[in-house]
Amino acid sequence: MHFTKERIDALEKHTRTHLINSLSGFKSANLIGTQDLQGNTNLSIVSSVIHLGANPPLVGMIVRPHSVPRHTFENIIQTGMYTINQVNKSIYKQAHQTSARYDKDESEFDATGLTPEFLNNFTAPFVKESRLKYSVKFIEHQHLAINGTELVIGEIIDVYVDEAALQSDGFLDLQAIETVAITGLDSYHTSNKLVRLPYARK
Amino acid sequence: MHFTKERIDALEKHTRTHLINSLSGFKSANLIGTQDLQGNTNLSIVSSVIHLGANPPLVGMIVRPHSVPRHTFENIIQTGMYTINQVNKSIYKQAHQTSARYDKDESEFDATGLTPEFLNNFTAPFVKESRLKYSVKFIEHQHLAINGTELVIGEIIDVYVDEAALQSDGFLDLQAIETVAITGLDSYHTSNKLVRLPYARK
Repeated sequence: MHFTKERIDALEKHTRTHLINSLSGFKSANLIGTQDLQGNTNLSIVSSVIHLGANPPLVGMIVRPHSVPRHTFENIIQTGMYTINQVNKSIYKQAHQTSARYDKDESEFDATGLTPEFLNNFTAPFVKESRLKYSVKFIEHQHLAINGTELVIGEIIDVYVDEAALQSDGFLDLQAIETVAITGLDSYHTSNKLVRLPYARK
Repeated sequence: MHFTKERIDALEKHTRTHLINSLSGFKSANLIGTQDLQGNTNLSIVSSVIHLGANPPLVGMIVRPHSVPRHTFENIIQTGMYTINQVNKSIYKQAHQTSARYDKDESEFDATGLTPEFLNNFTAPFVKESRLKYSVKFIEHQHLAINGTELVIGEIIDVYVDEAALQSDGFLDLQAIETVAITGLDSYHTSNKLVRLPYARK
């Protein structure tokens, strides 16, 4: 099947959104935990978290400030702190539900039944049910003028991981802790490991 | 298990790289096809391709200009054209092998046995064995000064997809075409679909 640019442009809006969202491949599924200066907690599912570098340890995500994660973005700018919590098979339905349009004074923790957890004096809430999570210190955001999104960059501080994932060389087995992946806007997947491949040489 | 920032900083370099690369969750697996002005083809596996928006249809990726994908970045800047080809279960070993340090006049197509394919007069090569691939027009790159990487942004032009993936609402079933996902630096996974969830409402 060949979709030309003209055909893509002519697609009904939701159809185009589903199609284009499917093109990048599997996406990470993470819950971003924040708190505003008044102590209101917020939780939002984000499928755009991306590794930026290991030294220093940096993580990025793309947010659309005027759509549902807007409270997340505001809280990060206000407080400089957030948590990233991998979504697993036991909580993906609750995680997805955080994408509904709750008001700022309604906590997605209360609305979905996920449990806020405060660790090591960090002021943003973790998700207790997540088996791999970390605190992040906001560093900067870069505005992508082309479509009004923001690349939010943060430094990874403390990592909390279920021992079941830990391998001797530092690799974390996400399958062992049932981390899920997303395709498109709304499809959730567990994984089957094929193999770890050695460093490629000519 | 709790890894404090101090403990992470003190990890042996490769261990830290594996650990930090595991934190973002599942990553997409894509081959980037380019050609230089002399007609040398290049192919490199990238795990950082990310959806940026559907309207206009934009795709991003993080590249490290001074590491292996440097020829890819140079070719994109020179020619303004590239292809993105999803990696599937039949070709993931060859795809991984493209990460070896081939010289600029050695094509990763020849080195790995993947087949270059030119479609619809687009000047960058596609991977014939990929079941979901698209041509991309380079728009801009944003330099991330914090670690010397580049966010490369392009516009999706023509999409070629195996009919087996196509659903009536535009969603593409990546599991049906055996697209793989990556965790960490080197682990490849197929997927098991859990469910597609409806748009979340309060």
